[in-house]
Amino acid sequence: MARACVVGASGFAGALAAALLWRHPRVSLEAVTARTDAGRMLDDLYPRYRVPLELETFDADRLAGVADVALVSYPHGAAAEAVAQLRAHGLRVVDLSADFRLQDAAAHERWYGPHGAPELRGEAVFGLTELHREEIAPAALVANPGCYATAAILALAPLARAGLIADAVVDAKSGVSGAGREANERTHFVSVDENVNPYAVDGHRHGAEIDQELEALGLRSHVTFVPHLLPLDQGLLASCYVMPPREVRAEEVGEVFADAYGGERFIELAGAAPGVRDVRDTNICRIHATVAPDGRVLVFSALDNLWKGAAGQAVQNLNLMLGLDEAEGLR
Amino acid sequence: MARACVVGASGFAGALAAALLWRHPRVSLEAVTARTDAGRMLDDLYPRYRVPLELETFDADRLAGVADVALVSYPHGAAAEAVAQLRAHGLRVVDLSADFRLQDAAAHERWYGPHGAPELRGEAVFGLTELHREEIAPAALVANPGCYATAAILALAPLARAGLIADAVVDAKSGVSGAGREANERTHFVSVDENVNPYAVDGHRHGAEIDQELEALGLRSHVTFVPHLLPLDQGLLASCYVMPPREVRAEEVGEVFADAYGGERFIELAGAAPGVRDVRDTNICRIHATVAPDGRVLVFSALDNLWKGAAGQAVQNLNLMLGLDEAEGLR
Amino acid sequence: MARACVVGASGFAGALAAALLWRHPRVSLEAVTARTDAGRMLDDLYPRYRVPLELETFDADRLAGVADVALVSYPHGAAAEAVAQLRAHGLRVVDLSADFRLQDAAAHERWYGPHGAPELRGEAVFGLTELHREEIAPAALVANPGCYATAAILALAPLARAGLIADAVVDAKSGVSGAGREANERTHFVSVDENVNPYAVDGHRHGAEIDQELEALGLRSHVTFVPHLLPLDQGLLASCYVMPPREVRAEEVGEVFADAYGGERFIELAGAAPGVRDVRDTNICRIHATVAPDGRVLVFSALDNLWKGAAGQAVQNLNLMLGLDEAEGLR
Amino acid sequence: MARACVVGASGFAGALAAALLWRHPRVSLEAVTARTDAGRMLDDLYPRYRVPLELETFDADRLAGVADVALVSYPHGAAAEAVAQLRAHGLRVVDLSADFRLQDAAAHERWYGPHGAPELRGEAVFGLTELHREEIAPAALVANPGCYATAAILALAPLARAGLIADAVVDAKSGVSGAGREANERTHFVSVDENVNPYAVDGHRHGAEIDQELEALGLRSHVTFVPHLLPLDQGLLASCYVMPPREVRAEEVGEVFADAYGGERFIELAGAAPGVRDVRDTNICRIHATVAPDGRVLVFSALDNLWKGAAGQAVQNLNLMLGLDEAEGLR
Repeated sequence: MARACVVGASGFAGALAAALLWRHPRVSLEAVTARTDAGRMLDDLYPRYRVPLELETFDADRLAGVADVALVSYPHGAAAEAVAQLRAHGLRVVDLSADFRLQDAAAHERWYGPHGAPELRGEAVFGLTELHREEIAPAALVANPGCYATAAILALAPLARAGLIADAVVDAKSGVSGAGREANERTHFVSVDENVNPYAVDGHRHGAEIDQELEALGLRSHVTFVPHLLPLDQGLLASCYVMPPREVRAEEVGEVFADAYGGERFIELAGAAPGVRDVRDTNICRIHATVAPDGRVLVFSALDNLWKGAAGQAVQNLNLMLGLDEAEGLR
Repeated sequence: MARACVVGASGFAGALAAALLWRHPRVSLEAVTARTDAGRMLDDLYPRYRVPLELETFDADRLAGVADVALVSYPHGAAAEAVAQLRAHGLRVVDLSADFRLQDAAAHERWYGPHGAPELRGEAVFGLTELHREEIAPAALVANPGCYATAAILALAPLARAGLIADAVVDAKSGVSGAGREANERTHFVSVDENVNPYAVDGHRHGAEIDQELEALGLRSHVTFVPHLLPLDQGLLASCYVMPPREVRAEEVGEVFADAYGGERFIELAGAAPGVRDVRDTNICRIHATVAPDGRVLVFSALDNLWKGAAGQAVQNLNLMLGLDEAEGLR
Repeated sequence: MARACVVGASGFAGALAAALLWRHPRVSLEAVTARTDAGRMLDDLYPRYRVPLELETFDADRLAGVADVALVSYPHGAAAEAVAQLRAHGLRVVDLSADFRLQDAAAHERWYGPHGAPELRGEAVFGLTELHREEIAPAALVANPGCYATAAILALAPLARAGLIADAVVDAKSGVSGAGREANERTHFVSVDENVNPYAVDGHRHGAEIDQELEALGLRSHVTFVPHLLPLDQGLLASCYVMPPREVRAEEVGEVFADAYGGERFIELAGAAPGVRDVRDTNICRIHATVAPDGRVLVFSALDNLWKGAAGQAVQNLNLMLGLDEAEGLR
Repeated sequence: MARACVVGASGFAGALAAALLWRHPRVSLEAVTARTDAGRMLDDLYPRYRVPLELETFDADRLAGVADVALVSYPHGAAAEAVAQLRAHGLRVVDLSADFRLQDAAAHERWYGPHGAPELRGEAVFGLTELHREEIAPAALVANPGCYATAAILALAPLARAGLIADAVVDAKSGVSGAGREANERTHFVSVDENVNPYAVDGHRHGAEIDQELEALGLRSHVTFVPHLLPLDQGLLASCYVMPPREVRAEEVGEVFADAYGGERFIELAGAAPGVRDVRDTNICRIHATVAPDGRVLVFSALDNLWKGAAGQAVQNLNLMLGLDEAEGLR
């Protein structure tokens, strides 16, 4: 029984991570921490998760005494230092923030500013499980991908690898839980209800993750990516419009995806365009790829932003790191 | 052309009041103020209202120079002082806060704490238009009722006046705009979506308004009132369960309501239970009264909490104060 | 391993029942049937449940060959005959329809018309688990309660038993899944969105279940019950307003509920009013009971109408009938 | 005072058209018809529109006796014959269906099958007001555009005319009212709530309207267009991704739009990406055009699918045909 802790368990992703580990058959959740809600019961903040633990103040010494692994779910920028302390105490870490996702220092600085723990960047592995399973298993530090990045990369990676992308647009739509627990004008019910809004149209930082991963697979062009906020809670859909460098048929595209994901436990290849309801409260990414009559390749990729887009994939990665079945605690 | 200003136009009710006056055929909106958003354009905060005015800092001197009447839409407690300054400068005021609603000083202090301008309480008229039309017309200060109070009082007043209430329960349901523009855990989209919550079950301050008005009509018992928050924006439904002191038939109840509201422009007596969609973006209160097979009288009262429950009724009252047709600018 | 089938698995409750049994550790789901969707895969109708079975036409002979127990989820009126056939073939049945809920023949006929299998009524047990556990375990036919009835009865039973109800009103609010899968004007998105509607204000048939069960516990008065339709999917809240025959304190009420439900696995006594989000996708009924300052007892009871209000409670009952742990397959 | 009728007033667009004409200062609404709801009051079907007229059975003779102009809001395919009868009786018509939108007979047949009144196609004018104002004014028959087509064409027309589109993708999102009043699995609340779905990914018929209009402006490439269904009532957003044939700067794009729409009453050029809430219940199309850092031109176009996307634009066109101010009855 591995011993785990969740650092930053009062946010949406951290709380779900705690809930998943609390019921995990092979991991025992030993501690949960929070920055501003320390002292409160997790049950009070999230009655529906039914995790009867008190949120503690972060203390790496104390955590090192009770846990071997940590899921860190701090905001971008705040995570690096906590991760550094946990690593210094020997814990293996899955970091749900963006702090260790971008391997290019300039790209990181552009989107997030100066890095809080540059000495650790070398050991971080990008935690998109289906692409980096071999490196994740032995890793000491896994950088869990962003929710948009997960959906877009899973949708485009097979095509990028096959050299089938000349140009790509990703129009992504997310539920509000993806915007986090902070109450502000954007997350107020009245702002979101009966609305749909594009945002970050001049560039969203998850775009850098998408480019990093697809370039590593051979893509030579930048992907245009625009997120939209929808009036729903959990769910993310990436609608991907790909101009191939040559004519392709639907069968070829189907084979490319079947080859890429045939044996995957958490990827479903669907015969029709998915809705986010199909994957809510699951760790599944459901993908439909087809060729439009005009020759463009269309890929629709749906996932639950809190599960496969955050806490679910974090647990999937943790399972790999612990040598467990990848799906433990996620069914 | 009367000249008006809206003090506190950055909140939901104040912004709608500004929008209504901006298009009012007999009133010109000369200034809008805000406490924390001064300097911003109202159009930026509320694009859909299309009021191209800049929010100013509150300055009673300046307002007295440009306006004869003011709608004040400050939070409870903050309004009294602004109202006092405006009154000292000679403006007639409709106050949307609770500061002047309760005539009983002890009741006010119990629910809202010490009063900020007790010297003005004597001149305040409770602005439920259909009940106090005669007093509102000449008033210098009108205390616009709470949204829940408006729905409940309109539903129960005819029965109270007729001596038909031995005991009453009001189960009220409101959209989130009723909770105001402040972003907090309660108004976060994720808290409200796919949820329904009772709140203030130990007593809600609008209850005091309900009791005050119904007692004045002869009711001798306290009304039990519990509000609930619903996943919608604008709309409020009061479901009222009345035990009559004697057996009554549906026809008698129907006559009581027809007598009370027969000539009213903003009250609809409906043949079936109303939904809040029926009255959204209108100043109408739609009421259905019937007698259940077990003899209980049921009254369902639906309104738009921002219109008849706040800004709409404020304009209705302002029209009366200015000697205009009550419905000007509200159709 | 008990062998089960779900008859009528294409409706919302039947499909969830199938999903629960498909993953049940001690029951194997051997067949699913549907009336109009026979031939389709359950996966096509409900991708999110991931039950890869084909819907069959109802055939009691065939079902008797593969299953020992059946969950029947037909519309009211249509269920009786299917239940009769299954019973004739020796299967034990949990019936989710209303066909066997009302023990009084006149009451049944009033709400539902002539009974389709009156000879079986004697053996039917009302399946509100927490009230009738002893009778359910050996039963051959269990009549699973209505969703509103479950919430209201669980909220009021402890008070009824303690003689603390002189008069009671239940104002209930339900998500749209409670209205069933049939597409009609009432369930159209545009009818429900941004709306709240009382309905069946002249009497709803679940009221007869509430009266039946509370009378059995000693209540002498009729309960006034009005349902409302809310813009959400799964979730039901019963707000109960009880006038006690004498003054009671909150502590006494707290003890009454603690005594009644202290050891229950699927009832949570909460310190504050529950929201339906707290219980979504669980078999839990979450209850808060308190005494208002005016002396009225308030009880708020929240459950998921498809789980504890239908399929979840059906599985809970099935577990009892099979001698299994009541919570198997429901965690 | 022009005399008008609405044929097919029981659908969402027809009912709004009736509501707009009922309050129109220069047009009197003389009759409303419906196919299946004849005999019902429009007020019963749509309480919120408050149009106290009885729906009649369609009778061209009778309509010709009371009206000079007709808005026809029948389903595609059913409209042509009604239009033909009305034209034969001398009424001028705005047809909200697709029956007269496509000028290419083969395109029409491909998407809609054989045409019901081919002899009238020559006189039909495509009713996108801002593009065809001159032809609409004298027209006897105006084919009101589809909602998606209106948003996409308004977003892309200025760029097409300026030769700035090498390749374009339109990812469109619509509220459920766009899917019509028919109750089916797609419009059931439970299918839409907490969901987002691409549909018609193999080609949507509004695409043919987009291509027709942009080709007329010089575009040589096909536009890829995919619609999505969102959990909201009224509102449509078209997110357009345009690869220009050469590098362009944001200023140039801004000038192209300012030139195209500078004097338009119902087009707003916004400094930031619009949300559909900004335009709900208005006839306004709100557009934001910018250039992404990667050089792609992004255009976001928001409108209310029932107003500018259907009934509002129909009234706008009717005003032109009657020689009235284009905005009469639409403010």
